[in-house]
Amino acid sequence: MEQDPGFIAAVEEAKQGAAEGGVPIGACLVSGDGKILGRGHNMRVQKGSPVLHAEMSALENSGRLPASAYEGATMYTTLSPCDMCTGACILYKIKRVVIGENQSFMGGEEYLLNRGKEVIVVDNQECKDLMAKFMKEKPELWNEDIAV
Amino acid sequence: MEQDPGFIAAVEEAKQGAAEGGVPIGACLVSGDGKILGRGHNMRVQKGSPVLHAEMSALENSGRLPASAYEGATMYTTLSPCDMCTGACILYKIKRVVIGENQSFMGGEEYLLNRGKEVIVVDNQECKDLMAKFMKEKPELWNEDIAV
Repeated sequence: MEQDPGFIAAVEEAKQGAAEGGVPIGACLVSGDGKILGRGHNMRVQKGSPVLHAEMSALENSGRLPASAYEGATMYTTLSPCDMCTGACILYKIKRVVIGENQSFMGGEEYLLNRGKEVIVVDNQECKDLMAKFMKEKPELWNEDIAV
Repeated sequence: MEQDPGFIAAVEEAKQGAAEGGVPIGACLVSGDGKILGRGHNMRVQKGSPVLHAEMSALENSGRLPASAYEGATMYTTLSPCDMCTGACILYKIKRVVIGENQSFMGGEEYLLNRGKEVIVVDNQECKDLMAKFMKEKPELWNEDIAV
């Protein structure tokens, strides 16, 4: 799972976000037949955006698509998805959510399961390290991002 | 409730969306002390965006805010919020969601209630008329917006 092109892309996106001084969370949306539809990272700092979390950026960068394009799709994300990103995955009927880690933050995994999604947590060390460094260095930014 | 500045703004936004040839749904986020933080409408057509539903546009146009800015806030929206917009209201701990109508589409109202939100449906005729006209004239666009 950690060798999936979608997961590798999500981690690359998280690192890019860190390099830009932003929230180091990345995501990648992959279609049912394995094609990358869109990838992106959190843009709170870069675009002053409260809605472009990583998963939302990946959806946004996938552009306008018919419902059929999301059939069987997988959302790879480096961190457990918040309530907003959870809801977005449900809206677009994304089949599976692959999560880098949920130690730094536990999002809507139970609700995803309740709504019939497949949830896989890979517990990736690189994802954990990126978040640990960020949460230590920029706690105010992290709190703002998850509204606490 | 239909005379609240936030509701009036949301309906104005929906009409603006219709005038632009887009999805005619509007929203307005109002702080606990009655200040309009941001307003917006669905931007699927205008920006080619799958994430900027009306409520998301209102949040986006509110910009980056600390969690405290959302305390006691109300999201006014002309249509029952989809799962994504429901999740966004939960993430930002918005207290109350005022909904123009839920006859054209029933969104995450039950989940909002389960998560401790106040939900008020005003059953506004103008909101219903906007959606009825749109759903008749552009059914494919509507289906794309709610991923069916």
